[in-house]
Amino acid sequence: MTYCLGIVLKAGLVMASDSRSNAGVDQVANVRKQTLIATPGERVISILTAGNLATSQAVVTRLTQAVGSGQPGEDIALASNLFDVARMVGERLREVMDKDGKFVKPYGDATSSFLVGGQIRGEPPRLFQVYPAGNVIEATDRSCFLQIGETKYGKPILDRTLTPDSPLDEAAKVALLSFDATLRSNLSVGPPIDLFIYATESFTAAGLQTLEEANPYWRALRTAYGEGLMALVESLPRPPPNP
Amino acid sequence: MTYCLGIVLKAGLVMASDSRSNAGVDQVANVRKQTLIATPGERVISILTAGNLATSQAVVTRLTQAVGSGQPGEDIALASNLFDVARMVGERLREVMDKDGKFVKPYGDATSSFLVGGQIRGEPPRLFQVYPAGNVIEATDRSCFLQIGETKYGKPILDRTLTPDSPLDEAAKVALLSFDATLRSNLSVGPPIDLFIYATESFTAAGLQTLEEANPYWRALRTAYGEGLMALVESLPRPPPNP
Repeated sequence: MTYCLGIVLKAGLVMASDSRSNAGVDQVANVRKQTLIATPGERVISILTAGNLATSQAVVTRLTQAVGSGQPGEDIALASNLFDVARMVGERLREVMDKDGKFVKPYGDATSSFLVGGQIRGEPPRLFQVYPAGNVIEATDRSCFLQIGETKYGKPILDRTLTPDSPLDEAAKVALLSFDATLRSNLSVGPPIDLFIYATESFTAAGLQTLEEANPYWRALRTAYGEGLMALVESLPRPPPNP
Repeated sequence: MTYCLGIVLKAGLVMASDSRSNAGVDQVANVRKQTLIATPGERVISILTAGNLATSQAVVTRLTQAVGSGQPGEDIALASNLFDVARMVGERLREVMDKDGKFVKPYGDATSSFLVGGQIRGEPPRLFQVYPAGNVIEATDRSCFLQIGETKYGKPILDRTLTPDSPLDEAAKVALLSFDATLRSNLSVGPPIDLFIYATESFTAAGLQTLEEANPYWRALRTAYGEGLMALVESLPRPPPNP
């Protein structure tokens, strides 16, 4: 399994991915599920992947290899908007599925899904999800985050706290709390977390950090949240006595 | 879908169920998914149901009709312990599946699952889950709650706050917060909530209440929790600046 989360705000983007890859519980590895493709000063694109690892790596490799090729429809560095980039991811996915899908099927699910977030000069930051069918949806101001993989455990905290006006570092905090909820309940989601915090109009990939489980900030955040939540629940009104 | 939750504590039990039944999004009804079978002063048993409604109603009807029949293995009022009650639920489920399963299969999933919580004099409160196969597991002091139906959205708050030593009204509060998280994210889980709060050694079914969405206590709880969580997240340490 996997957990990837994208958040799009007026202030920027938060893109986060876990690192666990597994084929059964007895075959576990750490992989990077976030790829940044950037032209400093002009465009920054983060691609997060879930699903079949061979498929998602093949898609990302085709995309990164085509950067600088000058081929329209293949070279992300030429795309004038992020919608076109998301569609390119979908196209590469369809190509890989055409080539590998029928061979992989006897062994399991060959499909992958993707989150594509970023900013291309001239546009605000945008965020898309690419489905296994290769079609795409975009996050809107009524649903400013998208998730792929194990999405449910980490969703309530996002629903309760995020709006498109949330400050960037607040959203990054909430993203880590969402990952913590998921990590506690699903063994097939695991650290480290690749966390990319992107400020609108900065056009730089510098905001990517990798948080190990023992990261002092993440530990302090987890502890303070756990204790704060216990105190909050205790402070809430008690149910009325039985009728 | 459905969400049912059982919590077993030293102080007693909390058993809670939603009310939505649906066959697709265009055919929705309210049903009661909690049944209490009690002999005041001696035993109180709550049965929560998820899955195929015809199957779960058939199982519960067989169980309630057999109360007072004096038939060992069928009359819950004769069972000397809650394990035997949970096994009886499993037996009735197997009988119903034997009878109806093959007819229902062309239309969808015929199976159901159950939570069985309660206390029989001479035992502490106990809580069991009955699987679609009719076999059962018991909650322990390392996992003092069990869930059936749409379990994921409402699990993190339970993981973070419940222990076997939690006071009964704290656990009831947390149960309602867990339902709130689930209701927000899954349209096929809906109010009212049937909430049974049982104090150890009370041997009474009086603690059953039905909370409509507009229930003043539940509304106040939701609001206070939402506001408190926003304030908590804001108070947490911010991420360090990018490396």
